[in-house]
Amino acid sequence: MNPLKYVDSQMPQLLSDLQKLIRQPSISAKNEGIEECAKLVKQLLTKTGIKSEILRLKGAAPVVYGEIISKSNPSKTLLFYNHYDVQPVEPFNLWDDHPFSGKIKGNKIFGRGSSDDKGELITRIQAVSAYVKTTGDVPCNIKFLIEGEEETGSAHIENYLKKYRRKFSCDGVIWEFGYVDSKNRPVVGLGMKGLLFVELSIIESIRDAHSSLAVLIKNPAWRLINALNTLRDTNGRILIKDWYKDVKPLSKDELRIISKEPFDEQSFKKEFGVSSFIGNIHGINAKKALVGSGTCNIAGLVSGYTEEGAKTVLPSKALAKIDFRLVPNMDPKKQVLRLKRHLNSKGFSDIDVKVYHGEAAARTNPSDPFVTIVKQAADESYGKSILNISNAGTGPMASFVSVLNTPCVSIGSTYMFSRIHSPNEFARIDLLKKTTKCMCLVMDKMGNLT
Amino acid sequence: MNPLKYVDSQMPQLLSDLQKLIRQPSISAKNEGIEECAKLVKQLLTKTGIKSEILRLKGAAPVVYGEIISKSNPSKTLLFYNHYDVQPVEPFNLWDDHPFSGKIKGNKIFGRGSSDDKGELITRIQAVSAYVKTTGDVPCNIKFLIEGEEETGSAHIENYLKKYRRKFSCDGVIWEFGYVDSKNRPVVGLGMKGLLFVELSIIESIRDAHSSLAVLIKNPAWRLINALNTLRDTNGRILIKDWYKDVKPLSKDELRIISKEPFDEQSFKKEFGVSSFIGNIHGINAKKALVGSGTCNIAGLVSGYTEEGAKTVLPSKALAKIDFRLVPNMDPKKQVLRLKRHLNSKGFSDIDVKVYHGEAAARTNPSDPFVTIVKQAADESYGKSILNISNAGTGPMASFVSVLNTPCVSIGSTYMFSRIHSPNEFARIDLLKKTTKCMCLVMDKMGNLT
Repeated sequence: MNPLKYVDSQMPQLLSDLQKLIRQPSISAKNEGIEECAKLVKQLLTKTGIKSEILRLKGAAPVVYGEIISKSNPSKTLLFYNHYDVQPVEPFNLWDDHPFSGKIKGNKIFGRGSSDDKGELITRIQAVSAYVKTTGDVPCNIKFLIEGEEETGSAHIENYLKKYRRKFSCDGVIWEFGYVDSKNRPVVGLGMKGLLFVELSIIESIRDAHSSLAVLIKNPAWRLINALNTLRDTNGRILIKDWYKDVKPLSKDELRIISKEPFDEQSFKKEFGVSSFIGNIHGINAKKALVGSGTCNIAGLVSGYTEEGAKTVLPSKALAKIDFRLVPNMDPKKQVLRLKRHLNSKGFSDIDVKVYHGEAAARTNPSDPFVTIVKQAADESYGKSILNISNAGTGPMASFVSVLNTPCVSIGSTYMFSRIHSPNEFARIDLLKKTTKCMCLVMDKMGNLT
Repeated sequence: MNPLKYVDSQMPQLLSDLQKLIRQPSISAKNEGIEECAKLVKQLLTKTGIKSEILRLKGAAPVVYGEIISKSNPSKTLLFYNHYDVQPVEPFNLWDDHPFSGKIKGNKIFGRGSSDDKGELITRIQAVSAYVKTTGDVPCNIKFLIEGEEETGSAHIENYLKKYRRKFSCDGVIWEFGYVDSKNRPVVGLGMKGLLFVELSIIESIRDAHSSLAVLIKNPAWRLINALNTLRDTNGRILIKDWYKDVKPLSKDELRIISKEPFDEQSFKKEFGVSSFIGNIHGINAKKALVGSGTCNIAGLVSGYTEEGAKTVLPSKALAKIDFRLVPNMDPKKQVLRLKRHLNSKGFSDIDVKVYHGEAAARTNPSDPFVTIVKQAADESYGKSILNISNAGTGPMASFVSVLNTPCVSIGSTYMFSRIHSPNEFARIDLLKKTTKCMCLVMDKMGNLT
């Protein structure tokens, strides 16, 4: 039987395996079921004929490693990067079924992780299975790196990559997720933005005071507001000296790809109930911003009394959580120094800067042959696909690119309204099937790459 | 037994009554325990031999009214104004004991309301009790007006005063609180500042979004920060047009009293852990600010994720709670209009202004005979007292002065570092005793006023 036909026949098996994975909770934020889920994943790999083992680093969740060497073409290696951990399920009461039910209703399978990322993982495993079962071989070497800390920021992935560099060496990485848009077009993604998450805080007195004393005692909220106000202009442009110094403008190639990318501006605005975007940008400029602009976003702001009603208090502390999205060539460490220098130069050396984490951006070259074969596989399995230079979000892609020196491409089964990270997360069964076939085609084309 | 000696013997009773009051939560901002506390206060009055009833106004917290007519001198009436409601207890985790414990440690009794205002109330009740128990009479008529909305701005006190004007008619009001300074000197206070409490808020989208979308979707926290930044300069001077237009400078008499008033700047700074004041003012200027300056204080600021750790969210809403202290001649209604005009003129008409409440400032004439007797009673019970033109805080004194046409003087037991409105609020037991005796002396002198 042809592997693609085999995928059709094996969908009940895929769904049953996915249900098993969903029903094993694995919440990294709460360290719930992590070891158990890693073992279950190892069993699934082994069952499929993939040699597998559990890798460990002190203080880190285990990584499940899998490998199957091609008899026909052992010169090319494809690595699947996925994660077996999931987001917390709260708010619990908004789920229609139990969050770990794996319940199937029509074309949907429900449960935390059904799309992100257990659904994606199962398509990769099932694609390997289709080849093994129908041909007794795989078209190229296949490796799996399945981590357990993605949802808490992949704190140890770079160390895993460095420690097991040889094990993970490959000619291309299929990223852990991929989106399918509202018109059923899969997005072939070539990059991720970086992220710098910091907390700015200031304490002006050792305790909260009655607000009548505001004639004398300094208010930290005012101080923080004055400092924050210097960080960006009203169009979102960051005013920190040299913030954009290392950034290269988008290339002609990138601009060409961006201009081709569809963007349903009206649906997007409707979804969030907004009538205009920052700086009144629209059309091609909105698309360019999603792909290529950095941000300085206030993710959290708090001081004093924040409950209902009035309280006349003079707070002792004020705090802002800020995430800066970074674009390629921006080094998180350098950007932190620039932020600190800015605060000092504006007279705000009393503001404390705590760095939560920094991660560089990454982009794979659109003309890399690996990109070409993934794009072809996507076009053939789903119909016409969309090329995307960079996702607006962040993932540890830069670590893969720099440590493994390999192209990374994201493609997958996650429908854009699949409610990942939210109650009633689901995966579309038709997209799980298409993605499994797409993975078969990627393996096949990888084997034929010269 | 002499009433003052009786006070000494009845301190265990006073503390046990105060514990009962503290243990009954009564948070007006959250409408928690208000009815229950009003009933408890009524019981306490009745137990003491004071005729009492609960007065009501639609939509308002009940007022507990108490009255005891003097057999020996029914021509003079003293009114005690107090409140049974308390501030919220947040931040809960900074309390060493439960906020409603009423725990006694050495010379201190702890709990929300222990000073403000349940401690003060109990001294007034205990003073009446001392006369009733030892003489079978009171030296002048005594009335109680105990409200339940002081901590949220006494929204209905003016209507209560107007509706029950005759019931409350009197020759002098002892205000609900009074301070004792760091050298144990009681402050006889003749005025209060006004207050305008507003909430500024803005919504930019209908739901929180992933912060990667901050390249397009406006962040309400930034908008709020930009708006707030226009409200005052770094020395605390309010930049709203005409904000100070109606303010009269302090008179020579007032300046003379201010100059005599002690102010232990070093202890004050040490208590709050600050090395300097706003605008680097000190000495007479710090004292003048406490008595005569307005403020624009951020009492609360909130947007997005405010828990521990990092969350990459783009909030849909941002909110600031601001209290402006007002000085005599500033009309809260006019000041609201000035604030709104300011926001509009600076391009921030999208910021919503919600007025929680407005209250004018008030001052009693220092040469009023009622001031003289209260000052004498304070000198006799605590040792030398201090005259203060105006407290830095706010109370509905303007309503009493205008509706009842009566002098109001504040004197009480609250140690200036009692952490009112803050975690670990306490009352000093020695000061509760002295204040009870002071109230006995005020009643006695009132009875002798011609």
